Amino acid sequence: MSLILDPAAQDLLFREAHTANAFTDEPVTDEQVQAIYDLVKYAPTAFNQSPLRVVLVRSPEGRERLVQHMSEGNRAKTASAPLTAILAADNEFHEELPKLFPAFPQAKDAFFSERSVRERSATFNGALQAAYFIVGVRAAGLAAGPMTGFDAAAINKEFFGDGEHSVLAVVNIGRPGDDAYRPRAPRLSYDEVVTTV
Amino acid sequence: MSLILDPAAQDLLFREAHTANAFTDEPVTDEQVQAIYDLVKYAPTAFNQSPLRVVLVRSPEGRERLVQHMSEGNRAKTASAPLTAILAADNEFHEELPKLFPAFPQAKDAFFSERSVRERSATFNGALQAAYFIVGVRAAGLAAGPMTGFDAAAINKEFFGDGEHSVLAVVNIGRPGDDAYRPRAPRLSYDEVVTTV
Repeated sequence: MSLILDPAAQDLLFREAHTANAFTDEPVTDEQVQAIYDLVKYAPTAFNQSPLRVVLVRSPEGRERLVQHMSEGNRAKTASAPLTAILAADNEFHEELPKLFPAFPQAKDAFFSERSVRERSATFNGALQAAYFIVGVRAAGLAAGPMTGFDAAAINKEFFGDGEHSVLAVVNIGRPGDDAYRPRAPRLSYDEVVTTV
Repeated sequence: MSLILDPAAQDLLFREAHTANAFTDEPVTDEQVQAIYDLVKYAPTAFNQSPLRVVLVRSPEGRERLVQHMSEGNRAKTASAPLTAILAADNEFHEELPKLFPAFPQAKDAFFSERSVRERSATFNGALQAAYFIVGVRAAGLAAGPMTGFDAAAINKEFFGDGEHSVLAVVNIGRPGDDAYRPRAPRLSYDEVVTTV
């Protein structure tokens, strides 16, 4: 066996996990989200920049403010999921670098003084953290329904308003309900993806 | 306990895993990389677009072609790692969508006819897959050393040359060698990252 990860964990996180489009009413607690964060926060980002910021949408008002900016096909499931998380990149992450990257505290000014460089870096590293977060949701025994169909500019304005955050994904979270899953679509084969030089 | 993932798996993938900067000589086999891919290929991307493409750098010539484009601080470890993987996004991923997203085969033309839209989507979803790949390397009991310090335009030209691929990260892979790890840097607290509305 080439993998040492326990087969049950392989199933939980990857093989048997599916994107969910419908959920039961069972609540997702703050304790669960905290446990997810406290697991996946250790996964790597460049310079440990950790640009991911999360808004948990719990109140009916918050839900309404979000749903209006989702694309049509994502509205019903976002309105009814027990918890929805807005995952965004903080384009001013560099302010935290002296704390987050003590090995080279000058990184803040040496590499990230330009906004366009920061934004590109925050988008990439925030996306890495979004993926870790999805894996973490599954580690909690929950299903994730990540979505990228929304009006990003409108969500940035509605939920952040400071011009410094860029939404990356919106993720419904809960226990899968009836007919939660589409059939598994095909994946590319190893030889279609990997070449060797 | 809020997580149902086995604690040993939590340690292997997140808590005890570290970015490695030095490796032993033990080879990383194609079978290991295939097992990693065959695990993480199931993790979600938008429209199942699966834009990640991987170049495994094995030959001395390939290694030399890569190392010259790495930033100075990344050269020695990239020259000596048992295996280095170039992770790139295929900006022409939409050609595969009729196969990859049978639920809506029209997605290729309906959503991805514009190159700029494709590129943004491939960059984000390729980054998700890069993160899944790093988790997969750890699932194989190996250490990953992901890097973003390189001349991206030069790597794109050197290894792809078709103008259709964008390098996302370069990842050294192997067993951790002596002094492989930096001390763990601090992470942001839950309250610094997560807010609720």
